[in-house]
Amino acid sequence: MFHNNWIETLHIDYPIIQAPMAGGITTPELVAAVSNAGGLGMIGAGYLNAEQTRKIIREVKSLTSNPFGINLFVPEKNAVDEVEILKMNTHLQKYREELNLPMEMPTISNNSVFEEQVRIIIEEGVPICTFTFGLPTEPIVKQLKEANIFLMGTATTVKEAQYGEKAGMDVIVAQGSEAGGHRGTFLEDTESSMIGLISLIPQVVDQVNIPVIAGGGIMDERGIMAARCLGAQGVQMGTAFLTCVESGAHELHKEAILKASEEEIVVTAAFSGKNARGINNRFIKEMSVYEGDIPSYPVQNSLTKDIRKAAGEQNNPNFMSLWSGQSPRLSKNKTVSELIQGLVDGYNRIKGTI
Amino acid sequence: MFHNNWIETLHIDYPIIQAPMAGGITTPELVAAVSNAGGLGMIGAGYLNAEQTRKIIREVKSLTSNPFGINLFVPEKNAVDEVEILKMNTHLQKYREELNLPMEMPTISNNSVFEEQVRIIIEEGVPICTFTFGLPTEPIVKQLKEANIFLMGTATTVKEAQYGEKAGMDVIVAQGSEAGGHRGTFLEDTESSMIGLISLIPQVVDQVNIPVIAGGGIMDERGIMAARCLGAQGVQMGTAFLTCVESGAHELHKEAILKASEEEIVVTAAFSGKNARGINNRFIKEMSVYEGDIPSYPVQNSLTKDIRKAAGEQNNPNFMSLWSGQSPRLSKNKTVSELIQGLVDGYNRIKGTI
Repeated sequence: MFHNNWIETLHIDYPIIQAPMAGGITTPELVAAVSNAGGLGMIGAGYLNAEQTRKIIREVKSLTSNPFGINLFVPEKNAVDEVEILKMNTHLQKYREELNLPMEMPTISNNSVFEEQVRIIIEEGVPICTFTFGLPTEPIVKQLKEANIFLMGTATTVKEAQYGEKAGMDVIVAQGSEAGGHRGTFLEDTESSMIGLISLIPQVVDQVNIPVIAGGGIMDERGIMAARCLGAQGVQMGTAFLTCVESGAHELHKEAILKASEEEIVVTAAFSGKNARGINNRFIKEMSVYEGDIPSYPVQNSLTKDIRKAAGEQNNPNFMSLWSGQSPRLSKNKTVSELIQGLVDGYNRIKGTI
Repeated sequence: MFHNNWIETLHIDYPIIQAPMAGGITTPELVAAVSNAGGLGMIGAGYLNAEQTRKIIREVKSLTSNPFGINLFVPEKNAVDEVEILKMNTHLQKYREELNLPMEMPTISNNSVFEEQVRIIIEEGVPICTFTFGLPTEPIVKQLKEANIFLMGTATTVKEAQYGEKAGMDVIVAQGSEAGGHRGTFLEDTESSMIGLISLIPQVVDQVNIPVIAGGGIMDERGIMAARCLGAQGVQMGTAFLTCVESGAHELHKEAILKASEEEIVVTAAFSGKNARGINNRFIKEMSVYEGDIPSYPVQNSLTKDIRKAAGEQNNPNFMSLWSGQSPRLSKNKTVSELIQGLVDGYNRIKGTI
């Protein structure tokens, strides 16, 4: 596959990054399998506390001697509105009842362990750290750079990519509107930051001087080759790895993607208070009537946590967040090494035909 | 550039289709210049009457001996709700006042000249006919095929592409969410039919047996090469031709695209009652409060016609429909032959580097 400076710097074989999917999907087995197969495995540490962060880093280290990375959610300071919270909680009670959950309001956690996580990453010598929902402050960038950690920022618009470059990121991951899971948008979260990769990549590449990685809807060698033609120096793939054998995604989540069509995939803020792309289901449909009432991330995320957890335990996909990008028809249930080998072989096969 | 069966059948040099932009943009000069430069020029005849349709076909014929095509809007049977119309008209009166227009309600036209246009196309021997907003009925497809006219249908989802193949289309134009102007969606016009090209093309290509053309956000050789990697057998480009010297777009429309950034481009039904992508402006912003009140196409289109027309005449971009795809930063003001030659040279240049 195509070589370039950033993967040589990091001693990675292929410019394929496994997207850091938070919430238990990026098991140590998944991350290590990707790195062992020559890609870049990434821990999604967004929802982990300090102890869990250290534990998973050590587990990955025990499974691979190749480079891997970790992704952090940059904390946001959203005002907590008590009335808004009580109102939303009332709407959610009927789902707690249906799932036989205690009718108490969950604790709203807005405490971030971001700075602790940064310390642990430096202590553990994780070689790559990436950021979503914002950019780290100057002192944090300085600390990480002094520890020789390679930094990647997420961007959904040209302006966000320029901010990332200015903040000292070594690489920008440009997330197209096709991407599954949470939108990485941190400047203006509107419909106009939903930009398709075929538009986003060339416009970003023309406006920044650091390498750009393409993320969103890429599932096979055709997407990788297309990303390269657009000017990207690598790809980040989430959904393609989510359905892999080693992924920690719920089996019903995997099955839902494997049989979904592209039209069933929508964007919703119902689960977390932040826009994210996934398969339409009863919770998303019913919550759409309360659209104006949804508290911002991370408040809504705390409020729906017990519901999502119970839905998983009870194998009830009606209330699970079934994140997926827009290319579910291309998903397969393979091992990571089969997937990556297939991508490399496919890439080399079509390379000759272009 | 890459060759394939459909362009050989049609005797076209390059698999580059100029998108059929209705409303005066596709002047005979633009269409003929594209065909003369080896691409496929397309007349956007959606808003033309029978007489205008025949006239523009003859004008294009007088300017080129190369193949060109014509696009028709397939008529939709939307119920006309008098109360809804009166309500919307009340909202629009303030703009008529501002533009010094008569305060009368415009005539609502729901009469289609579609069948007459089909007859004229057959009589005039236009070699290619494409369809938007739906598919022609079996008898019409039969008539056109008996006249040896090559047919292309628009699709925004896999299902729409499959319908197009079944209806007898020779080629499918797959329109990504990046595309400027009206969405071609005709099955379910929801947010979930806004699919990025990098997701849409491979999924459509895998599910139909006819050639697929990629449209949306493609402005240069990078996009053309990417579309090819994804499995497309050609591209349809709108915005890139809209800003060309020969295009009939309003000068302020061209200027607005040439200086726009990708974040300013939104989807709105405010102008026509049908979702379309363009540069955000005062009319779109102010109309967003009446979102539930907008009558369906073509009713809203009739209601806003005088306002858009006066805005153009008065050089007032606040009320013009400034259609654009999501890649305005890649737009240039060139002649058509410079644009196409640049695409071909650029394509050949990057081909060697992949």
